[in-house]
Amino acid sequence: MVKYPSGSLAAFRKPVTKKEEHKVRRSYTHRKGVNFSDRGMTLEQQINESNKYYLSEEIAVVHKKPTPVQIVKVDYPKRSRAVIREAYFRQASTTDYNGVYKGYYLDFEAKETRNKTNFPLKNFHEHQIFHLDECLKQQGICFAIIRFASLERYFVTPASFVIHAWREKDKSSMTLKEIEAHSYEIKSSFRPTLPYLRAVDDFIADRERE
Amino acid sequence: MVKYPSGSLAAFRKPVTKKEEHKVRRSYTHRKGVNFSDRGMTLEQQINESNKYYLSEEIAVVHKKPTPVQIVKVDYPKRSRAVIREAYFRQASTTDYNGVYKGYYLDFEAKETRNKTNFPLKNFHEHQIFHLDECLKQQGICFAIIRFASLERYFVTPASFVIHAWREKDKSSMTLKEIEAHSYEIKSSFRPTLPYLRAVDDFIADRERE
Repeated sequence: MVKYPSGSLAAFRKPVTKKEEHKVRRSYTHRKGVNFSDRGMTLEQQINESNKYYLSEEIAVVHKKPTPVQIVKVDYPKRSRAVIREAYFRQASTTDYNGVYKGYYLDFEAKETRNKTNFPLKNFHEHQIFHLDECLKQQGICFAIIRFASLERYFVTPASFVIHAWREKDKSSMTLKEIEAHSYEIKSSFRPTLPYLRAVDDFIADRERE
Repeated sequence: MVKYPSGSLAAFRKPVTKKEEHKVRRSYTHRKGVNFSDRGMTLEQQINESNKYYLSEEIAVVHKKPTPVQIVKVDYPKRSRAVIREAYFRQASTTDYNGVYKGYYLDFEAKETRNKTNFPLKNFHEHQIFHLDECLKQQGICFAIIRFASLERYFVTPASFVIHAWREKDKSSMTLKEIEAHSYEIKSSFRPTLPYLRAVDDFIADRERE
């Protein structure tokens, strides 16, 4: 990550004020000849970086939700900021990402596998499936971003398909063929890192036609 | 809170599995003669409880975002779950609540005051104003839920008005009169605790007419 000091990991190192964050965002420069397959970023980093780009260009507002934590004990040392001394991870009740794009509510989960021919359904947890289903009932645009890391292929897979596969008895994975048939593949680009909204555009267009 | 074992605070006491949460939610019973003015709940508790009701009735999917925390050190004691031993509060970059309702993206912040005639604008932070403004550009339904605690009055105040007031030079508060003129007042009911979506319905209807 040394090459990308303004990358998404920065947010985890120290809290930045909103103003600094904007500065970082606006200074985002075009990196020639870099494509997302050789940058050693995790899928989460790729999505976070893309979301920063979408926000700075006023294309969409999508944020990753913070990890839910149950805070038990906090110290307030003199002349320095509060330190959480005892806390526990809580079970999330939603997916990791949501936001708004051209009036549409977006809700998605990001998942990756190193498998080459199928995607194991155990990667999706019950609370994620439940939440996606609830959001679908409210007419949200719900999907998974699925990365086949070894193939460097990325898909926007509609939640309706994922939910259906997940609930099918005796089905442990979605095959790559099935995913290809039911998804919108994300094509590579220089900016943003992972231009998933182009695939979402096609998904929305198909949904409107129905 | 002794009277309400299934109330929203329960979530902070111990993590519950999704299944248990459903059980709790489904067992929600009608409480005769209780109205939200005498229950000693904070605004956040009222909203969280209402969101549980909306979710269980499949009316809307709205969640409070977890507090963002930067985790530095985690212990993994044998035979028990992970304990976070050092963590810090991070600056949020969004409002506290968002979700989806009938295809609309909802985004809001909840604020209360004990003042009787005006609402101090310093209650809104720059990152909240910035975020509401960005979501408005994406056609989200953006607002604040404002509670005048001493008056027991609650308003859904459109973000456009809040942002405008916040940015006005030399303006330190919105008067109750201004808020009345620009908002949708939330009327009391038994279920949910704070039926804010009825006010949001009027807000949406007015916006569609524009």
